[in-house]
Amino acid sequence: MEQGPRGGSRPAEPGPCLSSPRGGEQAALVPLLSAAGAEPGSRMLAVAAVLPAGGCGERMGVPTPKQFCPVLERPLISYTLQAMERACWIKDIIVVVTGENMEAMENIIKKYKHKRISLVEAGVTRHRSIFNGLKALADNQPNSRLSKPEVVIIHDAVRPFFEEDILLKVVTAAKEHGCSDYDLEFGTECLQLALKYCHIKAKLVEGSPDLWKVTYKRDLYAAESIIKERISQEICIVMDTKENEEHISHLLEEVLKTELNHIHVRSQALYNAGSDIQHINLEQCYNFVCVNVKEPDFQETQKLMSMLEESNFSILYSIVVVSVHFLDFKLSSPSQKMESLMCIREFAKKMKKRKILLYGLIINYSQDEQKLQESLRQGAIIIAALIKERNSALIGQLLVA
Amino acid sequence: MEQGPRGGSRPAEPGPCLSSPRGGEQAALVPLLSAAGAEPGSRMLAVAAVLPAGGCGERMGVPTPKQFCPVLERPLISYTLQAMERACWIKDIIVVVTGENMEAMENIIKKYKHKRISLVEAGVTRHRSIFNGLKALADNQPNSRLSKPEVVIIHDAVRPFFEEDILLKVVTAAKEHGCSDYDLEFGTECLQLALKYCHIKAKLVEGSPDLWKVTYKRDLYAAESIIKERISQEICIVMDTKENEEHISHLLEEVLKTELNHIHVRSQALYNAGSDIQHINLEQCYNFVCVNVKEPDFQETQKLMSMLEESNFSILYSIVVVSVHFLDFKLSSPSQKMESLMCIREFAKKMKKRKILLYGLIINYSQDEQKLQESLRQGAIIIAALIKERNSALIGQLLVA
Repeated sequence: MEQGPRGGSRPAEPGPCLSSPRGGEQAALVPLLSAAGAEPGSRMLAVAAVLPAGGCGERMGVPTPKQFCPVLERPLISYTLQAMERACWIKDIIVVVTGENMEAMENIIKKYKHKRISLVEAGVTRHRSIFNGLKALADNQPNSRLSKPEVVIIHDAVRPFFEEDILLKVVTAAKEHGCSDYDLEFGTECLQLALKYCHIKAKLVEGSPDLWKVTYKRDLYAAESIIKERISQEICIVMDTKENEEHISHLLEEVLKTELNHIHVRSQALYNAGSDIQHINLEQCYNFVCVNVKEPDFQETQKLMSMLEESNFSILYSIVVVSVHFLDFKLSSPSQKMESLMCIREFAKKMKKRKILLYGLIINYSQDEQKLQESLRQGAIIIAALIKERNSALIGQLLVA
Repeated sequence: MEQGPRGGSRPAEPGPCLSSPRGGEQAALVPLLSAAGAEPGSRMLAVAAVLPAGGCGERMGVPTPKQFCPVLERPLISYTLQAMERACWIKDIIVVVTGENMEAMENIIKKYKHKRISLVEAGVTRHRSIFNGLKALADNQPNSRLSKPEVVIIHDAVRPFFEEDILLKVVTAAKEHGCSDYDLEFGTECLQLALKYCHIKAKLVEGSPDLWKVTYKRDLYAAESIIKERISQEICIVMDTKENEEHISHLLEEVLKTELNHIHVRSQALYNAGSDIQHINLEQCYNFVCVNVKEPDFQETQKLMSMLEESNFSILYSIVVVSVHFLDFKLSSPSQKMESLMCIREFAKKMKKRKILLYGLIINYSQDEQKLQESLRQGAIIIAALIKERNSALIGQLLVA
């Protein structure tokens, strides 16, 4: 067997794992691999991450290995990479995959534009795979863009939910602490194993319930719901700025704020949207309500769609756009409006290819204040449902509130 | 402290619990409480169940105790009771709740028409609560409708997914087996605790991944998805039986079967639906596609809705009804059809109160065979989405395929 980066005779099993050693409490056991030679106290640590992703996911009950299972049409591992990338202080991210999944993994990195990723081929066991990842970091080959790190985070590819501050805690602990007697006595056997076989300084770091592992099919369901909830937290209302039209848009904004009180609703004028859309992206907004009041019917929505299409914002998550149209049902039947809006169907089909989900919504702009409020409320409920479900089967439909 | 049914000095902790003693495998530890005096080998065992439901669910991160958290608008504990009730050989089901939740629990039993349930007040700990449940079974009071059982199943109220055959295995093991040396050595410490403190014969029974416990908020998401999937497995197409009209219905049926190949699709004529609906209920169908071809537009759907309304089938789960209407878009615009179908909105609102979710779907009945197939396929995708999501915000909408 080849020598690992620490020169030990056997590779470690340092994968962060969430267990419940104390009766299911929220304690996470996060053993660490602290590379030899790291200088305690230094500020700018060289940190890398190794993500073992060679598993076959037999407990999932599906033929696809769980790390490649789609969650909202994107492979699970891409979410883990996305979370890892957010920590800009991690210099290199090594993903360890089996030879047969190498090409699929390359395609995922390309499609979702992941950065700082290197691929390494898995070994026959998880231990060997981690060893291969560490070896790639330790090898100081002239052509390698990888540099030897001081601390390496080992993180399961099937734990997509974690916060940067947990990673930072783990890295800090790896740097600063030794393996305390208390942890050895009252922690779990993993710490002792790490010491016995790898002479590695391990430290128990308190985790969070977020740090769970996708193991069973039900975990995929949970992951999907969590992600849907996360990307539904913000709605941007796009409108033009004419006085009388602003009135309608702002009424809708107020009702949305009241009805969806857990969601952040804000409005944006479209006329200078070039810079605004950029701003929206930075705050990770994936939900737009576009108010159309001018003729022709779809002008505002089409403007927004062109911008979204150009922006490539929908690479990681689908974007929901609800095109809102007001009409006094007493003066004119919603079906007449529908007639003029039928083109939304073809438009929506085209947009779906760019992961932009377009729906139409006609709201009764009644002169009766109470009826208007009821329609706006109903509209808000429909908008919330469309955003929450992100159902691509219903794109291009014209809904009525 | 009062004496328990077995006369022990301390109540047992025999709650079935899912742990993963062997590295996360699908092994469930199901300690048993086997009442003294049970005769081995007897065929018709007297079996009761005790469901401790006094927890406060602090790990859930929500103010409602997890057993009362709504899943598809119904409290979690009601699903557990429903699963327990399916085992008709369980004579009594004791639910142990805190005094403050007693009334809420009574209302749940009433609302969802649960049978064979008795309520007992919880103690200060889970152990005491189970003890109280057992005591209620052991007390042989003249007015009590409870009788002393030979075997008692202790089952967490927050484990809603289990199959009857697992319960049966557990009861059989309780009856037949002693506590083997092997299990004591290689099982978990619970078995030894049971022996040490309660002199109870315990046996390790292999469980299934279904036996998981709802602990965190993500588990509620998973539970909701699992239940949605379960009740979406069967679609009943309701149609009348005229020859030419049958043609359309059967075309839709074929496409539904092809597109939704994991779902059981069957058709039913409505004219003798009185008995058929009863039949549908027995097979637990909660999804109907009603094909309307006769004038007036809604005749078939209204007939079906009246039957469903009378039947009370929607007590446990919401029922989805998709009212399908065919129209050649070349001869007449879908918006004209929509005009005549607008009454669906008020009708759907009324039905929602009975947990019947009604949606409209207009399918392009094109003379062009290819276009027709595409419309039918699109219709099938919309139907599948409506059934899968069961979204009450979209009731009364007219969708177009």
